[in-house]
Amino acid sequence: MNVGFIGLGAMGREMAAQLLKAGHQVKVWNRSPEPVAALVAQGAEAAATPAAALAGEVLVSMLADDAAVESLLLDEVLLAAATITVHVNMATVSPELARRAAELHQRHGIGYLAAPVLGRTDVAAAGNLSILAAGEAALVDRVAPLFAAMGRQTFRLGERPELANVAKISTNFLLISAVEALAEATALAEASGLAATDLLEVLTGTLFPGPVYAGYGSMMAARSYDPAFRLALGLKDVNLALDAGAATHVPLPIASVLRDALLEGIAHGDGGLDLAALGETARRRAGAA
Amino acid sequence: MNVGFIGLGAMGREMAAQLLKAGHQVKVWNRSPEPVAALVAQGAEAAATPAAALAGEVLVSMLADDAAVESLLLDEVLLAAATITVHVNMATVSPELARRAAELHQRHGIGYLAAPVLGRTDVAAAGNLSILAAGEAALVDRVAPLFAAMGRQTFRLGERPELANVAKISTNFLLISAVEALAEATALAEASGLAATDLLEVLTGTLFPGPVYAGYGSMMAARSYDPAFRLALGLKDVNLALDAGAATHVPLPIASVLRDALLEGIAHGDGGLDLAALGETARRRAGAA
Amino acid sequence: MNVGFIGLGAMGREMAAQLLKAGHQVKVWNRSPEPVAALVAQGAEAAATPAAALAGEVLVSMLADDAAVESLLLDEVLLAAATITVHVNMATVSPELARRAAELHQRHGIGYLAAPVLGRTDVAAAGNLSILAAGEAALVDRVAPLFAAMGRQTFRLGERPELANVAKISTNFLLISAVEALAEATALAEASGLAATDLLEVLTGTLFPGPVYAGYGSMMAARSYDPAFRLALGLKDVNLALDAGAATHVPLPIASVLRDALLEGIAHGDGGLDLAALGETARRRAGAA
Amino acid sequence: MNVGFIGLGAMGREMAAQLLKAGHQVKVWNRSPEPVAALVAQGAEAAATPAAALAGEVLVSMLADDAAVESLLLDEVLLAAATITVHVNMATVSPELARRAAELHQRHGIGYLAAPVLGRTDVAAAGNLSILAAGEAALVDRVAPLFAAMGRQTFRLGERPELANVAKISTNFLLISAVEALAEATALAEASGLAATDLLEVLTGTLFPGPVYAGYGSMMAARSYDPAFRLALGLKDVNLALDAGAATHVPLPIASVLRDALLEGIAHGDGGLDLAALGETARRRAGAA
Repeated sequence: MNVGFIGLGAMGREMAAQLLKAGHQVKVWNRSPEPVAALVAQGAEAAATPAAALAGEVLVSMLADDAAVESLLLDEVLLAAATITVHVNMATVSPELARRAAELHQRHGIGYLAAPVLGRTDVAAAGNLSILAAGEAALVDRVAPLFAAMGRQTFRLGERPELANVAKISTNFLLISAVEALAEATALAEASGLAATDLLEVLTGTLFPGPVYAGYGSMMAARSYDPAFRLALGLKDVNLALDAGAATHVPLPIASVLRDALLEGIAHGDGGLDLAALGETARRRAGAA
Repeated sequence: MNVGFIGLGAMGREMAAQLLKAGHQVKVWNRSPEPVAALVAQGAEAAATPAAALAGEVLVSMLADDAAVESLLLDEVLLAAATITVHVNMATVSPELARRAAELHQRHGIGYLAAPVLGRTDVAAAGNLSILAAGEAALVDRVAPLFAAMGRQTFRLGERPELANVAKISTNFLLISAVEALAEATALAEASGLAATDLLEVLTGTLFPGPVYAGYGSMMAARSYDPAFRLALGLKDVNLALDAGAATHVPLPIASVLRDALLEGIAHGDGGLDLAALGETARRRAGAA
Repeated sequence: MNVGFIGLGAMGREMAAQLLKAGHQVKVWNRSPEPVAALVAQGAEAAATPAAALAGEVLVSMLADDAAVESLLLDEVLLAAATITVHVNMATVSPELARRAAELHQRHGIGYLAAPVLGRTDVAAAGNLSILAAGEAALVDRVAPLFAAMGRQTFRLGERPELANVAKISTNFLLISAVEALAEATALAEASGLAATDLLEVLTGTLFPGPVYAGYGSMMAARSYDPAFRLALGLKDVNLALDAGAATHVPLPIASVLRDALLEGIAHGDGGLDLAALGETARRRAGAA
Repeated sequence: MNVGFIGLGAMGREMAAQLLKAGHQVKVWNRSPEPVAALVAQGAEAAATPAAALAGEVLVSMLADDAAVESLLLDEVLLAAATITVHVNMATVSPELARRAAELHQRHGIGYLAAPVLGRTDVAAAGNLSILAAGEAALVDRVAPLFAAMGRQTFRLGERPELANVAKISTNFLLISAVEALAEATALAEASGLAATDLLEVLTGTLFPGPVYAGYGSMMAARSYDPAFRLALGLKDVNLALDAGAATHVPLPIASVLRDALLEGIAHGDGGLDLAALGETARRRAGAA
């Protein structure tokens, strides 16, 4: 397919590369030029402006946050001039933004799909993302080849685009909850004289198989926080959950605790470390950091 | 081995039955007589008094809580008269009780092991429990045949008995944290129009494999709370975590949130339902129950 | 003085009326026309546009929130054309907005003062507000006659305008904290069999004199919530506190609890009641509403 | 009257001294002998045993906590031998203890009053305590001369003794809530550049007159925590509130936050400082301590 791709951050550049590898024509645009050059070397065409990336059949966007989508793409003039029939927004944005975006696109005869992804950059680089897709079914069918290039599975979450964002936000909320609970349990274990690794062996060998507890737990045990998912990004995601809760009047007391812990971590300079550094905040509170 | 077994609740009776099946001589005592009769029919001997159950080589106890252990077994006269060389306390009790019990037993020349278990009654009935064992290594070796009869794996957590209790309490804390986070996410999803089953499919198909999220999540989605792990027992376990945190000066803000949610569930009559009924509290707070 | 006044909500109209009563010339503008007519009847001049209200010496604004200030007044063209030498923003807005507003005004040679107020509409109608003022001292001196007309005391909080907003936000945070604590204590008292009025008599007769505990407490005791300070406005203020905390990396766990309780109240339809209706949320959680 | 007095801690010794000053005969007992000697010098008689202090008309007790009351006074043999007709328990204990104590005393034909007090040692030394009294009205009348000697006002809270304990616990909960909210607001103010003293001037000059906000706020502003109400005692009181809430199924989310903050303060060595040292925990969390 003839695809425009906007937003070549750590995730976006890997996703665009998968599209190229699968034989799609990809015209890329990014605020900073470096990733554009790299993709051009892999066969992409550089778009001189965002508008040029909206001149094909499909736009895929993977921007940082609501504000970036708003300022770059939610523009009447831009959309009026676009030839794309569908915009697939794969970023983690708010349900509220998805709702507004879908309406605005519709007024310009453009389909809008929300398709946020689960998986880190290495998973993206292997084309193994999990894609949470919502929007008109026929549109999801149309872009299925793109999803097949980028992901290993697609969850179809109905016709309302924003529901894919709700699913993504909820999943990340559960992830960060698990990490914070692990951080508190680790602080308790250590204060009691139980090695974090001993606790972790029990957890992952019984109730909590899978990579989340093992991965974050071993970083906490080793107190080594090479960032795969930066703590400051965790705060962005928790705020999305809190905002979605506020919009629907759903209190999320666990999310409130997460927000406070993440802010505290950032206050102590841990914002650039991995989310697992919540373990340091828990220890610090216990007088043990 | 010649084993006394005290505490034949839903778990204890299955565990004692496994010991019988493995060919051990088991003398059982319980406050109420019914489970005694059932086990006698399977080959156990009935102990007329707790003291009679301490007249063999090993005592295994599986009592309801700290208070039951305290009143039945932490008795100078009883221990002075006992012939057992080791007491294996498999109940979920506080590290503080384990510490006091270990000291008291030592004064009477009796070994003390903490060996709380993970797994529900069906797992116990299949001899597949996970056993978290701590105490003198030679003693753990000695009772290994008993653990082999009751469980499928034993985690050895060092020489200080109370550390096994810390591990058990921490694991249950993580479990209840996951259930509460799931409850909040489910309330958010539903308030947004996303079916709980759709969210659950994403969660278990991506970050959260394993039985915890799938099991509790499907009860929440179906709003059907046939109790496997009663909500009121969850409060007991969270209180154990909070008490252990207080004793070591480790704040556990997630546990505080859990305590409040569990109390609220009990206030609304959900104490006898499964822990998954935390989903009802989350919905109720959102005005949706 | 020759004053423009923008924002004639429940508070603003009373404040503008005080300026008229003190003999100032006041040109008023409001989005909806009704309050304009009322003030014209008291001697004000109607401004046809916001710009017309910026054509005198001083602008006083009392708008609903950050968004209203942003869209109406933070406009380069408007400020470039204005003749005012100082804009006194008396609304409860964020420190962040105050900072941006001060910079923008400065670029246009206009002074900017933050002067949020404490006191309800009846206090405003009596000219008895407490004014929290910050900004250049000479400017505060210049508008002192206006403050004297509207308030009974002015707290001078230094040269940085946003600090007055921090003080206002902090005060409201403390107020809402006190109301929520009172709500929880009332639920506890009632569940124990102690009348809310008995508890209140103790509180106000010992540690907590002053109108806050007495006023909100008696509404809670009577379960009658005629709104003086609407619960939904409380959420706006708590969000201002949380945002200010986020901007400076200061966790505010009490504010997080307030946010959850207020959202829960709104979810149950109490948003239009007085803040004291937090007492209903506390009772509801205890199964007693 | 002929009064036995048990429990001569910092408060008890001042209260007993007031009884002596008012002309009552007082027989005192205390675990450690020093305060006994001091009171004997003021005219008291030393009781050789607790039993000797129960040999008069009235027993007043002011012990440290539930455990002390339980071990010293809730004794069948002791009460069977006592001649007192009423025991006035002025300590801060749990409603649950009050209930059990009242029943036990009744079985021995002894009246039981709960009469916890508000006020610190200097207030006690001036005979100006506020007394929260509950129990049989005729008994309260009988001991009115004792209350008159120790306090400046008595609140009568009905016939069920435990309700006075509920009122005391609720009042202290509100006090500690106010201090924690003040701590958070102070951390926010300082991180924003607003002096704590400026904020305090606004608070006490507007919504929060009275000694609580002024007193704790000025300690926080000065970061000087000479203990009048020790932080560790605050934790005891918050735990009483949480336990009372648990017993009646009333969630107290603010109390949960307080417990976590107090534990964190104790973990950092602040347990012996004044409660106002919650200000240090709030600053520490913000990376500013």
